[in-house]
Amino acid sequence: MTEFIPPGTRFHPLPSPFPMKRGGALVGAHVAFETWGELNAARDNAVLIVTGLSPDAHAAANEGNPEAGWWEPMLGPGKPIDTDRWFVVCVNSLGSCKGSTGPASMNPSTGALYRLDFPDLSVEDGADAAASVVRGLGITRLACLIGNSMGGMTALSLLQRHPGIAHAHINISGAPRALPFSIAIRSLQREAIRLDPNWNHGQYDEVTYPESGMRMARKLGVITYRSALEWDGRFGRVRLESDRPDEEPFGLEFQVESYLEGHARRFVRRFDPNCYLYLSRSMDWFDLGPDGLRQIHVDKVLAIGVHTDILFPLQQQQEIADGLREGGADATFLPLESPQGHDAFLVDIARFGPAVAGFLATL
Amino acid sequence: MTEFIPPGTRFHPLPSPFPMKRGGALVGAHVAFETWGELNAARDNAVLIVTGLSPDAHAAANEGNPEAGWWEPMLGPGKPIDTDRWFVVCVNSLGSCKGSTGPASMNPSTGALYRLDFPDLSVEDGADAAASVVRGLGITRLACLIGNSMGGMTALSLLQRHPGIAHAHINISGAPRALPFSIAIRSLQREAIRLDPNWNHGQYDEVTYPESGMRMARKLGVITYRSALEWDGRFGRVRLESDRPDEEPFGLEFQVESYLEGHARRFVRRFDPNCYLYLSRSMDWFDLGPDGLRQIHVDKVLAIGVHTDILFPLQQQQEIADGLREGGADATFLPLESPQGHDAFLVDIARFGPAVAGFLATL
Repeated sequence: MTEFIPPGTRFHPLPSPFPMKRGGALVGAHVAFETWGELNAARDNAVLIVTGLSPDAHAAANEGNPEAGWWEPMLGPGKPIDTDRWFVVCVNSLGSCKGSTGPASMNPSTGALYRLDFPDLSVEDGADAAASVVRGLGITRLACLIGNSMGGMTALSLLQRHPGIAHAHINISGAPRALPFSIAIRSLQREAIRLDPNWNHGQYDEVTYPESGMRMARKLGVITYRSALEWDGRFGRVRLESDRPDEEPFGLEFQVESYLEGHARRFVRRFDPNCYLYLSRSMDWFDLGPDGLRQIHVDKVLAIGVHTDILFPLQQQQEIADGLREGGADATFLPLESPQGHDAFLVDIARFGPAVAGFLATL
Repeated sequence: MTEFIPPGTRFHPLPSPFPMKRGGALVGAHVAFETWGELNAARDNAVLIVTGLSPDAHAAANEGNPEAGWWEPMLGPGKPIDTDRWFVVCVNSLGSCKGSTGPASMNPSTGALYRLDFPDLSVEDGADAAASVVRGLGITRLACLIGNSMGGMTALSLLQRHPGIAHAHINISGAPRALPFSIAIRSLQREAIRLDPNWNHGQYDEVTYPESGMRMARKLGVITYRSALEWDGRFGRVRLESDRPDEEPFGLEFQVESYLEGHARRFVRRFDPNCYLYLSRSMDWFDLGPDGLRQIHVDKVLAIGVHTDILFPLQQQQEIADGLREGGADATFLPLESPQGHDAFLVDIARFGPAVAGFLATL
């Protein structure tokens, strides 16, 4: 499924075998990554970005790929994460389908795709894989570790399992553990995929593909990634042009329905359903433990959250800041008034840009 | 589908033909209702309850049916809605499958079930049908009109379309119009049903029944009817007894998943899928209009909302109180701190009981 992988992606081979937290090991696995800027002679200007569930490693345009990336306004020369100063690395999560080894990769022991033979995937495995990329680049200590959404979980796991790996940390809309509302949402997303007859216990192909299940899962995702407040202003009760544009009974009629449909259509063929299931479940399983935060040693922390986030609610970022402070960090909790909910960090650059830039300027 | 109808249900025949707002008319239609207490000689002690999407008319035990009803702790002798004082009527919504005429009823012009031949259903049609029940009982003016959730929409429509029908009004977790977040949720619920091959454009039966679609729709409903806050305390990250009780890949593992599954299983065969689709869409369509609230004449109003409601958010009940006050009502907005979200009125009797009783005591 190479169509998922952006051009210019680089690959870091993981130690083989690569042991997985819940059992099993990967043989001949690798992690996709991209970089921006230059590592300085002291090797102390490195910033690692670990991502949410769906992004690839192409966070922004670079020499290998001039296309805009998923965090384009945040990353580049003179931008909030200033690549004139920082050597920035972004990894594609282990278990994803955007270049890193995952359920959509070839299983070397069978010559077929892993599909559901991929071992249980944990956030911790993604953290270990990201740490291996860092070491492979000759970096002993990151200047800053940045994690967004699921990447906020991965980052905390990285700090816990690899003490000293980072001087500073920015946790954006992350969480120290999954809570039942988000577990319920993700469980329902997975059920939508599993119920699609074309999923067929993971044995689908490009022709017989669980498109309906993926569409449902993505729509529910988009609903919970944004916020009611944003949509009130953006869509209100505006209808599509014709009164009954969709001839199907109970078909699309309101702009908000069409918006969801468009998002879903763009996603369903660009993300492997089995990878989605594995990554989704890994988040449910994630729990740093009752003393996890205060046992982490990191010097400076910025934990950013958004009032309108229903998936990773604000009190979870407060908990991250408080817990890391108990562990000795100089930790700041920054709640933002973004109306865009969980995904605000992707779009509300007016608020997130200065927050991230301001913190990095203190390092 | 008579198994949906509680024993003791009474039936009010609607005028025939009964014109529908968006076109068409029902012939030989009726509305199911139940009553509690006695109408006094002056006929000025009547209270009407209009419900959310799924309840039947059996709000509480009565002579016709001693089983507990869906609002049992609120309604009865000495209870917050005190049937020693009030003559209480609860109607099953037009378009439902709990006794009132709807898509699961026989179409007299064909001798078959209406299914998708039922005309477009609007909240306004449900309001007109409820008004007809009130008139049929010889009541000119209700002492109080109470509407919960979708019933809060129906109640506003009743007041708008039948001026003078009520002296007072309690609007609980209602809305003067559907907003895009709730439209999006309901659209996805309908899509889950429509995608189920067994739905078959409404042509299912008891054997070939859209059970998966209804289960998905109900789970999404329950997720949005309650609140993350409640679930954090109630379920946390507690797992089911065995580590992997569900042998299916990505099967149930956490208590919150099992809770949703149980709710869904209890619901899917007790509510007709086509009726669900019609009632769900009627809510999306509902919009009282920009001047709707201030054009309503009602004397006293209590609009109650809950901080944790994500489906009918608190600002909508504030808008109801403010708008009806502009129209001349003595209107109070009462935000409650219930953790249970939209459905709090069903379970948080400690807060809702005194609020409703206190208001009724002023009448």
